[in-house]
Amino acid sequence: MRVGRRAVLAGLTGLAALPVAGAFVAGVTSTAQAAGDPLSSWNDGPAKQAILDFVQATTDKTNPKFVPIEARIATFDQDGTLWVEKPMYAQVIYCLDRVPAVVRVKPELAKVEPFKTVLSGNRGAIAKFSMADLEQILVATLTGMSVDRFKDEVKDWLAKAKHPRWNRPYTELIYQPMLEVMQYLRANGYKTYIVTGGGQDFVRVYAEQVYGIPPEQVVGTIGGTKYGYDKDGTPFLTKEPRLLLNDDHAGKPEGIHLMIGRRPYAAFGNSIGDQQMLEYTKAGEGARLATLVLHDDDRREYAYGPAEGQPDSKVGTFTQALYDQAAKQGWVVIRMKEDWRQIFPFE
Amino acid sequence: MRVGRRAVLAGLTGLAALPVAGAFVAGVTSTAQAAGDPLSSWNDGPAKQAILDFVQATTDKTNPKFVPIEARIATFDQDGTLWVEKPMYAQVIYCLDRVPAVVRVKPELAKVEPFKTVLSGNRGAIAKFSMADLEQILVATLTGMSVDRFKDEVKDWLAKAKHPRWNRPYTELIYQPMLEVMQYLRANGYKTYIVTGGGQDFVRVYAEQVYGIPPEQVVGTIGGTKYGYDKDGTPFLTKEPRLLLNDDHAGKPEGIHLMIGRRPYAAFGNSIGDQQMLEYTKAGEGARLATLVLHDDDRREYAYGPAEGQPDSKVGTFTQALYDQAAKQGWVVIRMKEDWRQIFPFE
Repeated sequence: MRVGRRAVLAGLTGLAALPVAGAFVAGVTSTAQAAGDPLSSWNDGPAKQAILDFVQATTDKTNPKFVPIEARIATFDQDGTLWVEKPMYAQVIYCLDRVPAVVRVKPELAKVEPFKTVLSGNRGAIAKFSMADLEQILVATLTGMSVDRFKDEVKDWLAKAKHPRWNRPYTELIYQPMLEVMQYLRANGYKTYIVTGGGQDFVRVYAEQVYGIPPEQVVGTIGGTKYGYDKDGTPFLTKEPRLLLNDDHAGKPEGIHLMIGRRPYAAFGNSIGDQQMLEYTKAGEGARLATLVLHDDDRREYAYGPAEGQPDSKVGTFTQALYDQAAKQGWVVIRMKEDWRQIFPFE
Repeated sequence: MRVGRRAVLAGLTGLAALPVAGAFVAGVTSTAQAAGDPLSSWNDGPAKQAILDFVQATTDKTNPKFVPIEARIATFDQDGTLWVEKPMYAQVIYCLDRVPAVVRVKPELAKVEPFKTVLSGNRGAIAKFSMADLEQILVATLTGMSVDRFKDEVKDWLAKAKHPRWNRPYTELIYQPMLEVMQYLRANGYKTYIVTGGGQDFVRVYAEQVYGIPPEQVVGTIGGTKYGYDKDGTPFLTKEPRLLLNDDHAGKPEGIHLMIGRRPYAAFGNSIGDQQMLEYTKAGEGARLATLVLHDDDRREYAYGPAEGQPDSKVGTFTQALYDQAAKQGWVVIRMKEDWRQIFPFE
């Protein structure tokens, strides 16, 4: 059920691109960045060492594991891998927050479920939504508008919305250690991509400013668009409720093939939604790095890995089976509590 | 009918990526490239000047038309814009040529139409195929195999197949002036993309070696893939007969949004299949360059523009209406006969 809901949540998203207010890329070069150590917010340990070794081996021409620069592709899941995914995906909160605006345009929806419940603000009832309910909300809030309009709406929301625990914009709740990994890979000729179950257009709105990843390097769940003309004959694209790719689970390698056309050499994830991306990455020849972020730090962030029995989490399913597969297939598990000296850029 | 067939031909294509035998990028720096002139195989004239002016204006920081480097996107149609599309699209010839191999695996097809006619070699009968016939051939030859297998098959074909008129590989029948434009744009910070009605995976097989365009910068007609495992548990992707995007006509701006997420500043096409891409490009703010290659040189290549009444052409429809729209909307028409001093790298 969790997985199914995850798929639906991921399923209906979509289209757009441009930067957000803040300058969070600055986080990359925060005080945590000590001279000489590209991964300075990481504690020494097997995870940090595996990343350093991988980059060293694949960029050294004398090493048999050398990878030519044009083939250096690294992919990153977003929710739970690059930023906080608890207590709920930011994009789902976006959709719920957008409901009043949708109802203002279509007042008849105010009396219709699930919109009525969303407007009531009853979090308990919202948490019990069926997949069909969520799908209705996603379609109503993520499609039907122009690509440019959607982009503006997301930008506006990101500038105002705050995470309930830290009272900060979602775009600040990004992991400093992962920003360092992305920057380190790029400094070594790797092209970094986001490969997310979230909406491709949603993530494109902020990925360049927040992570330094341009729109064309965001692979996500893709909805169709429709080309048309306004009354002045100016062409524009409308976001349609038509799913082209659910970029989660098996959809991740499919999305990577669609958008990149090359197999990654390194892939970073944190849940069963990333399993196939990591398998696909590791199945390539030569040196391949597959990693999973394990959330085991309830004090500084959240704990919802296998050891914690996944307490009432709707998202980020790091199961025991995934943990076992990681051990068996040589994937690197990044343990937040031990491996990350610092979690957020603002700390 | 022509357009419909074009759409179907484009419709079922797909997936893969790697280089071909030859080293045709060498063509870019052929004898035609005189020192100092980035477009040396172009004759002086309004088309050449428009390209030079556009690049000059958009890369000069003091010019109000300056475009920041990350937004410098240029898109190129392929068939008829970057290489010869007559007498038939290379990809369609590929599909017809693959039929015997398909029949070897499934001998029962030898007695079934349209495969029977293809095997007969009766060109007249093949030319009369309905869209349904062609669709069957495309599905049989472009889907059902792994992404890697498809790539190998295309590579093999490209190494052997020859154009009937020049008796040279299709990958040599590329336009030297357009290679120069791509190189000139890249030298000025532009990211160059192919945006083709042809199969994304088909074009990816050779685009890097032939045009210097990596797989992730090839936007084409996209078929779905399916993730699975072989008997040893190794994951692989299978090409499916499921159309995600017909990257032609209105599908071109839709494909650009899907794959790039930014509006191009320059777009190059040659037919009604490129109309919407050019409109979409020109509708952006600031300096935008939209161009059409007019094939009016029967002696050195082909002539099938409006003046020529499109003699028995199945492809490359440059209609009078398109010509009129170009004049009205300020698109640049590149006249092969007048504007190109040299056509192919091998000349």
